[in-house]
Amino acid sequence: MSQHVHTAGALAEAFGLSVHGDPAATVSGVATLAGAQPHHLSFLSNPRYRAQLAATVAGIVVMRGDDAQGYAGTALVASDPYVAFARMAALFEPAARHPTGVHASADVDPTAAIDPTASVAAFVAIGPRSRIGAGARIGPGCVIGEDCSVGTGSELVARVTLVRRVRLGARVLVHPGAVLGADGFGLAMDRGDDGTRHWIKVPQLGGVVVGDDCEIGANTTIDRGAIEDTVLEDDVRLDNQIQVGHNVRIGAHTAMAGCSAVAGSAVIGRYCQVGGGAGILGHLTVCDHVVVNAMALVTSSIDRPGEYSSGTPLMETRSWRRSAARFRQLDALARRLPAGTKETT
Amino acid sequence: MSQHVHTAGALAEAFGLSVHGDPAATVSGVATLAGAQPHHLSFLSNPRYRAQLAATVAGIVVMRGDDAQGYAGTALVASDPYVAFARMAALFEPAARHPTGVHASADVDPTAAIDPTASVAAFVAIGPRSRIGAGARIGPGCVIGEDCSVGTGSELVARVTLVRRVRLGARVLVHPGAVLGADGFGLAMDRGDDGTRHWIKVPQLGGVVVGDDCEIGANTTIDRGAIEDTVLEDDVRLDNQIQVGHNVRIGAHTAMAGCSAVAGSAVIGRYCQVGGGAGILGHLTVCDHVVVNAMALVTSSIDRPGEYSSGTPLMETRSWRRSAARFRQLDALARRLPAGTKETT
Amino acid sequence: MSQHVHTAGALAEAFGLSVHGDPAATVSGVATLAGAQPHHLSFLSNPRYRAQLAATVAGIVVMRGDDAQGYAGTALVASDPYVAFARMAALFEPAARHPTGVHASADVDPTAAIDPTASVAAFVAIGPRSRIGAGARIGPGCVIGEDCSVGTGSELVARVTLVRRVRLGARVLVHPGAVLGADGFGLAMDRGDDGTRHWIKVPQLGGVVVGDDCEIGANTTIDRGAIEDTVLEDDVRLDNQIQVGHNVRIGAHTAMAGCSAVAGSAVIGRYCQVGGGAGILGHLTVCDHVVVNAMALVTSSIDRPGEYSSGTPLMETRSWRRSAARFRQLDALARRLPAGTKETT
Repeated sequence: MSQHVHTAGALAEAFGLSVHGDPAATVSGVATLAGAQPHHLSFLSNPRYRAQLAATVAGIVVMRGDDAQGYAGTALVASDPYVAFARMAALFEPAARHPTGVHASADVDPTAAIDPTASVAAFVAIGPRSRIGAGARIGPGCVIGEDCSVGTGSELVARVTLVRRVRLGARVLVHPGAVLGADGFGLAMDRGDDGTRHWIKVPQLGGVVVGDDCEIGANTTIDRGAIEDTVLEDDVRLDNQIQVGHNVRIGAHTAMAGCSAVAGSAVIGRYCQVGGGAGILGHLTVCDHVVVNAMALVTSSIDRPGEYSSGTPLMETRSWRRSAARFRQLDALARRLPAGTKETT
Repeated sequence: MSQHVHTAGALAEAFGLSVHGDPAATVSGVATLAGAQPHHLSFLSNPRYRAQLAATVAGIVVMRGDDAQGYAGTALVASDPYVAFARMAALFEPAARHPTGVHASADVDPTAAIDPTASVAAFVAIGPRSRIGAGARIGPGCVIGEDCSVGTGSELVARVTLVRRVRLGARVLVHPGAVLGADGFGLAMDRGDDGTRHWIKVPQLGGVVVGDDCEIGANTTIDRGAIEDTVLEDDVRLDNQIQVGHNVRIGAHTAMAGCSAVAGSAVIGRYCQVGGGAGILGHLTVCDHVVVNAMALVTSSIDRPGEYSSGTPLMETRSWRRSAARFRQLDALARRLPAGTKETT
Repeated sequence: MSQHVHTAGALAEAFGLSVHGDPAATVSGVATLAGAQPHHLSFLSNPRYRAQLAATVAGIVVMRGDDAQGYAGTALVASDPYVAFARMAALFEPAARHPTGVHASADVDPTAAIDPTASVAAFVAIGPRSRIGAGARIGPGCVIGEDCSVGTGSELVARVTLVRRVRLGARVLVHPGAVLGADGFGLAMDRGDDGTRHWIKVPQLGGVVVGDDCEIGANTTIDRGAIEDTVLEDDVRLDNQIQVGHNVRIGAHTAMAGCSAVAGSAVIGRYCQVGGGAGILGHLTVCDHVVVNAMALVTSSIDRPGEYSSGTPLMETRSWRRSAARFRQLDALARRLPAGTKETT
């Protein structure tokens, strides 16, 4: 996967680690412990893979000091092997070359400003008054509307849409199919001249502000605010297929897994983790350091850090049907409990 | 956000409201009560923001008559302040200019018909026999296949796909990344010559019909019908990331929130509201005026208007685990209830 | 819908069926039993539509032998009418013509290899070292990055993205908006020089491998692996809006309905069926022949074929609130059950 060859000694020096074994051992790629060949760098972080360490033929393995005791091969010793591996693995990612400048096919409004060190690929449309920063990369098929800005070193991989009034900070990475700055879902039920009720659209006059070092997954959508902006603070990490409603604010360092969703005007704290498919209703506040488990639904504000869940466990359908039927009766069943016992909730 | 300046008196006249305070008060933008400066129009609709009214410095506030009593500033009095505000806010939305005509880069089939007053942007592909109506706007990167039509004044914002046989009514707004008219998910399990079972595809010969005044959110998908059409009646409002299966029918004025989904051949009534992440199984019928709450799953037809829910409340995970374990035992627990009490469900 | 006319006799011969009634009966399109006119082919598979058979005026109806007894019209008798209908219906799908060759507007890297029998449409970008096989079709607006391959006879309908290192087998069909090969969601929490914790990105060095005869729905996302590949075996069928995390493996002939999701490194067996909106957590194993019902969450490995569910039944919200409140108390309630009865789980 890469022609680069690295010795254990050089890696140790570059990443501040210590070598256990042969500093001259070399690697030219990465692999799992189980899949590694002698030219691979691997790592041991999760203890349940410890048994694979004895059998691996990886050339170099990143691990904790106590795992390195008695390991016959070459190890790089790190206090957090996963972080150390993540940093080293970047050496083996083949760098895609993106030519500086604007592709001949791109359609750029004359009032837009593209930094000369930016890269704008084929079939990109950039609208009035939008700005592309130094070293930024706009991949093929992206559409950027009016009054947007893309910060220094940010990348829109391909087919990303910034609809309007979307400002991305520095080093933001947006994956294909993401749509930022579409109209928030603002509706009011009105009565027409003939008395029939119908929806009217509430104009969405805000924008989207994304801080530095954020990542936005493929096909994720972040609507612009109705009046004020929708905001992602620095280092927010969103997986694929996430929906973020208008006027939401997500605190710094919060990560959300795939298919989760946040309804309009919810405020999520810093260092939160939202599991896959989880939902957060609108106009709620979630404090810092909250973990919401997969497919849980947050229906009221959370003001205490901790881990939260909802739902029922997976069961064979035949058994589940019996439990589900009893759930319907739950209040009636509870009322049949013997009297005289103090109820504890 | 806008150079337009409006007086309270002029707004009252244009929108049929009455002025409380100074008819010469002016505004040139909109804001929330809390965020407003003196040049802003704001509104009070939700009673829980009433406390903010005393402190706001908004130039004009739209509110109900009883809220205006004793209000020291300038108010526009409306029976439904949110509707009135929504209408007025449109004055402050900067109008994007879309040049009439077909962009030089667009790839239009010679059998397609584009109204001369329509706007077709860069990198748009339009297939055989498709028609774009008067005043319609097809934004950058849209792909329209065969036999589609886009009605008068409709807009595909950017990167929308109409695959084939998709007919949009008048004033339909489709947000980026939406895909209408892809193959429905029709499969039959067949047995091959060697006896192994495998899927065969059921051809999807229908289309998609969308009524007037509908809105389709970003990255929402609406499949075309297997034999007959998938239908959205007039004024249906779909948020982002929604999935609508083949041969679904959604009644007029129904609104669905983000990430909800309707499986094939379900029929949903008029004036329904489907919450975020909710699901409706296939081949069901939901009557008019039904509210389905967020992340609920509709597993059988609903023939009575009302509000429906499923799921369990959010709990701290430690407590939730205990309840979840008991859910598994629920039928056995119920059977342990003392005999002799009549069970009420 | 088609100018092709077929007689019952010719269809019987072509598809190995027998005729009940008039072999000279003709059809030129398909319809449901209820919607059919005399020139339509229809079918009866689901017994609950049997009552519609008496009233239908369809020219030919595909059905089982016992349904054909006493049927006054013309029938084609099949052991599996749905499969037989699916095959015949393909005769009535109007074939879209896709010109061979590369559209003048496409942007193809000089190191890419396009088979001369392939079709590459307008506004397609193809990156370094990617290969398009014989008879493949790349629809408008697709973006294919580096080191991808599209197998013989495969089709990317429109606006599909293959980010990098994505290899599709033969006869794979990918619907608009799908994104294959985006970065997996790999993060490690690191501590900066100033002591603050922040995310660092784990490089995603693997690819995506998709077997023959797979179908990938609109706006579905499949991330590439962190180290090894994400894999779909042959004949996997994914509906719209599905999320497949990095390093997932999905077994042959498995079908997943819309909005379902599989988290990283999960392994799903062959011939499984995953319902709409269902979730499968990461690092789990699901054996062959498992059915997961709609919106269920799989939280631990499944090693026994069968049907699995989670969640609670839909209820009117007022009743649901009472059951939900009792769910919170469930452990306490269970402890109040009379002593002396042996608990059975």
